[in-house]
Amino acid sequence: MTMKDIKIELTTYKKEKPASDKLGFGQFFTDHMLIIDYKNGKGWHDPRIIPYQPISLDPAAKVFHYGQTVFEGLKAYVTVDKRVLLFRPESNFKRLNASNERLCIPAINEEFALEGLKQLITVDREWIPTEPGTSLYIRPFIIATDPYLGVSSSRSFQFIIIMSPVGSYYKEGIKPVKILVEQNYVRAVAGGTGAAKTGGNYASSLKGQEIASEDGYSQTLWLDGVEKRYVEEVGSMNIFFKMNGTVVTPALNGSILPGITRDSMIQLLKSKNIPIEERRISIDEVIEAYHNGTLEEAFGTGTAAVISPIGELKWQEERIIINNGEIGEVTQMLYDTLTGIQNGSLEDPFSWTIKL
Amino acid sequence: MTMKDIKIELTTYKKEKPASDKLGFGQFFTDHMLIIDYKNGKGWHDPRIIPYQPISLDPAAKVFHYGQTVFEGLKAYVTVDKRVLLFRPESNFKRLNASNERLCIPAINEEFALEGLKQLITVDREWIPTEPGTSLYIRPFIIATDPYLGVSSSRSFQFIIIMSPVGSYYKEGIKPVKILVEQNYVRAVAGGTGAAKTGGNYASSLKGQEIASEDGYSQTLWLDGVEKRYVEEVGSMNIFFKMNGTVVTPALNGSILPGITRDSMIQLLKSKNIPIEERRISIDEVIEAYHNGTLEEAFGTGTAAVISPIGELKWQEERIIINNGEIGEVTQMLYDTLTGIQNGSLEDPFSWTIKL
Repeated sequence: MTMKDIKIELTTYKKEKPASDKLGFGQFFTDHMLIIDYKNGKGWHDPRIIPYQPISLDPAAKVFHYGQTVFEGLKAYVTVDKRVLLFRPESNFKRLNASNERLCIPAINEEFALEGLKQLITVDREWIPTEPGTSLYIRPFIIATDPYLGVSSSRSFQFIIIMSPVGSYYKEGIKPVKILVEQNYVRAVAGGTGAAKTGGNYASSLKGQEIASEDGYSQTLWLDGVEKRYVEEVGSMNIFFKMNGTVVTPALNGSILPGITRDSMIQLLKSKNIPIEERRISIDEVIEAYHNGTLEEAFGTGTAAVISPIGELKWQEERIIINNGEIGEVTQMLYDTLTGIQNGSLEDPFSWTIKL
Repeated sequence: MTMKDIKIELTTYKKEKPASDKLGFGQFFTDHMLIIDYKNGKGWHDPRIIPYQPISLDPAAKVFHYGQTVFEGLKAYVTVDKRVLLFRPESNFKRLNASNERLCIPAINEEFALEGLKQLITVDREWIPTEPGTSLYIRPFIIATDPYLGVSSSRSFQFIIIMSPVGSYYKEGIKPVKILVEQNYVRAVAGGTGAAKTGGNYASSLKGQEIASEDGYSQTLWLDGVEKRYVEEVGSMNIFFKMNGTVVTPALNGSILPGITRDSMIQLLKSKNIPIEERRISIDEVIEAYHNGTLEEAFGTGTAAVISPIGELKWQEERIIINNGEIGEVTQMLYDTLTGIQNGSLEDPFSWTIKL
């Protein structure tokens, strides 16, 4: 399968593009999508860019029953001088294959997927929004399509990329969020699928989200599934704390998603000579740091928000207010630096961005 | 929504029915399916029986990305005197709602779902196979259809029932299976979704199945996610051991599926005055019972196979042979009794079967 195998069928009807202040997240989609089919014995085949359209599947298709699915999320940006930049896309396709391995889905060719994505973006280039803070969110995903109810790995799959112009996550400036520490429900456990980007982890997390919302909190802080003591993730983001001058984040232990934004933050912190540690962090340690005045900042990291500062944690009956509910200095620096690299307004000493 | 709201559109093309010795499991489907839609603010609506056909969904539909889906499995049988029997269907729809609760999916009306199922079976009655050991496998499932990439509960769903004529699980008599005890991967953990019938649990289990197959074993025995010490499930079945005259099965601890066949077996054993205990069972206890000669029988239970006797367990480097690799006396009695009640050849003192 080479690039010249990608068939392109252009749409005859171009959708109207939404106003940039109405974009929100993941609710509008561009005019085209990329599809590659897989069949046992034949491998990945028939790559094609076609008009954005419904997927038609047998009701017995495994994705509807057994959750055999993986996905990725990444962004493209237009710079002020009209270059199109992708942020670390190779890392996403590499992680997609790591998820595939865990979910018994055949590996994709990472280079080919990236080339296909570039071609798709070229076709839908005018969909990349240009207002500050906006971007094109890219969603590659794989679904199991075999119409067979036996519990076994599918014999056929579809790899699909759809794209959504998204608005600024922080229209009125970054606002720290309030987080509820979940004590009963669990997102993932070592030996499970927590380190893979697969539907089941997100399905499992909805209940925590619902409980947090009912209590007036916007997200859940997840503790480990074994002792319910160690910090894992926040909502669907990785989590960082700054305590006594050192930034800490949970080490990758098999149940935490190896976030690409997480990794970028770690590299940024190192380059700024700010102490950063990847290790186990108990919730007790965080509470104690709060009590002795050394809990300085907290934030989540992920592709959608880049950084989401945490202004309050609720643990049992106690409300932990962090940095007076304001965004911290290091958090702000990391946000400014990473978004600057992503949108091309700052130098990229890490070679993270790829020009289309 | 009442029964008269169910619109029925009959197929104009009846598929050819497969020969009963070619049925297998879950690969052929009847001529019709039942669909009920859900939308926030409108509730469940528009129940309809339509020709079996592909489902068409926006590629951003949440089921493809975040695994918000639940399902059930149950069977219908034709008795020798041509009655159609359903086995404990209320229990399935009740469990579906328990799964819905965990997955943040709106509850269905259980009575209405059962009435809809009865009507669907009536329409496709001639698809119920009649050979001994065959049955009609029924698969109700719910999928999240909202085309929105935010991680949140869907605002729209579809409840669907499809049906598949299935062959005898044991064409050449019951044959005990060989099971590998999994030491690294985990199916579920308390606080997660293990007690719900949702795709993520099955997606997570595929890797263990793959590892077992490569080692010449047919299924995985799952240990708990916390200590990796206590027996949970086998493949996608509940597990029972007979040790020193007492039958034991893991207690429902939040990470084990509350199997309807499991519950039926417990009731059957009690009615026969065979000691039955629901409690924690460590793998060490099973190994020790093997060594001191008191591990008498082992079997899995589930809708598909009813009972699957276990002839061998591999734990680390040790091969545990159970009852010389033959089906045990109690296992055989349970199988004969339950299948007899299900297919109407035995009295049903428990009122488990419902006549259509």
